Amino acid sequence: MSEREPVIVFALFPGVTQLDFTGPHQVFSRLPGARVILASAAGGAIETDGITFAGLRRLAEIPACDVVCVPGGAGATDNAIGDDAFLAELRRLAATARYVTSVCTGSLVLGAAGLLRGRRAACHWAWRDLLAPFGAIADPGRVVRDGNVITGGGVTAGIDFALTVVAELAGRETAQTIQLAIEYAPAPPFNAGSPETAPPAILARAEDHNATARPRRRQAVMQAASRLAAG
Amino acid sequence: MSEREPVIVFALFPGVTQLDFTGPHQVFSRLPGARVILASAAGGAIETDGITFAGLRRLAEIPACDVVCVPGGAGATDNAIGDDAFLAELRRLAATARYVTSVCTGSLVLGAAGLLRGRRAACHWAWRDLLAPFGAIADPGRVVRDGNVITGGGVTAGIDFALTVVAELAGRETAQTIQLAIEYAPAPPFNAGSPETAPPAILARAEDHNATARPRRRQAVMQAASRLAAG
Repeated sequence: MSEREPVIVFALFPGVTQLDFTGPHQVFSRLPGARVILASAAGGAIETDGITFAGLRRLAEIPACDVVCVPGGAGATDNAIGDDAFLAELRRLAATARYVTSVCTGSLVLGAAGLLRGRRAACHWAWRDLLAPFGAIADPGRVVRDGNVITGGGVTAGIDFALTVVAELAGRETAQTIQLAIEYAPAPPFNAGSPETAPPAILARAEDHNATARPRRRQAVMQAASRLAAG
Repeated sequence: MSEREPVIVFALFPGVTQLDFTGPHQVFSRLPGARVILASAAGGAIETDGITFAGLRRLAEIPACDVVCVPGGAGATDNAIGDDAFLAELRRLAATARYVTSVCTGSLVLGAAGLLRGRRAACHWAWRDLLAPFGAIADPGRVVRDGNVITGGGVTAGIDFALTVVAELAGRETAQTIQLAIEYAPAPPFNAGSPETAPPAILARAEDHNATARPRRRQAVMQAASRLAAG
């Protein structure tokens, strides 16, 4: 793939968390010459969070790319983790990509595809511990680089992630130019964005909520890890 | 409109900057009970930045809402500023909405609709000076509240904006819970997100780029301001 006109593919699945990819997509779409492609196993349209994204390409139609990026999602990630055809497409694209990447729980999907063995990786704070069954090393960083694997933390980390990838692809000045254009000088009205800074009652409420999703997710991860070990 | 199940409408137009609304949409979609609606003058689909958003409602079909939000866009904003039918729909929804809001250059569209007379408002840093012809008072804040008008600065300010609106609608604990769920603890890899912090060469490059768009935008603003004064 050309360094001057990078092809960046977001590998989507039904129920994906939209900001996991719309955030980085906005950054990449301003990278001069870049082709940014939304794709899924089936192509067509995906509805998620009340938004319908149409015109998606089929992953199988894409011969190769410079960056493959897997976003995350709530229950949807568990389905992607168990979808062998989807994982096979990721492995195929990853084999020749310059960068293999994810945002949020997308790193669990990369793990299920066998792409994180021995690699440090980021993940949404609530699900980081589920990287270990895939042989990955959970890293609390917001953006984590290990070789050609670049992963971002939960949802909004995708913007920090994408600026980091742009700096890799095109230099820090291009990344800074995009940062200024999208006025990325964040000023959250509260300081509750991580488990370390959230008020204890807020964290407890989030952990209660996540506890209901944990058994299904843990089972999906363990089954995928077994298949990976057997394969 | 009910306080318990707020209806939030994003008024879109072709060429809108997608992160201006996908960022706040992700926040609002996690507000318990909220109905978040993407709508445009024509309904159907809008393509922008290489993404096709389908299933949009027609603005005229929406009888009322709690929050109306207008995102911005590059050249597209200039078209919206001059689209009397679109502006009339905004005025109609704004007349009964609890909050009249915008992200990025969406405040210029609110201004063209006559909704910012005498109000302080935010805007993308590069275009703030164009609020004055509409009788608005440009404010450099990232999120600016004046009465029931809440406006955000450029693109990524939409996330800070939406958390602020959620705190208004449902309290700070709900906003903090959403902030933690989307791991909004931003850590930009560079400090170039505002004209005050960007390296001078980066700012100069952005200003050169914006200078080519300025005459058309300024003309659209001046024409809309004249129509507003005459109307």
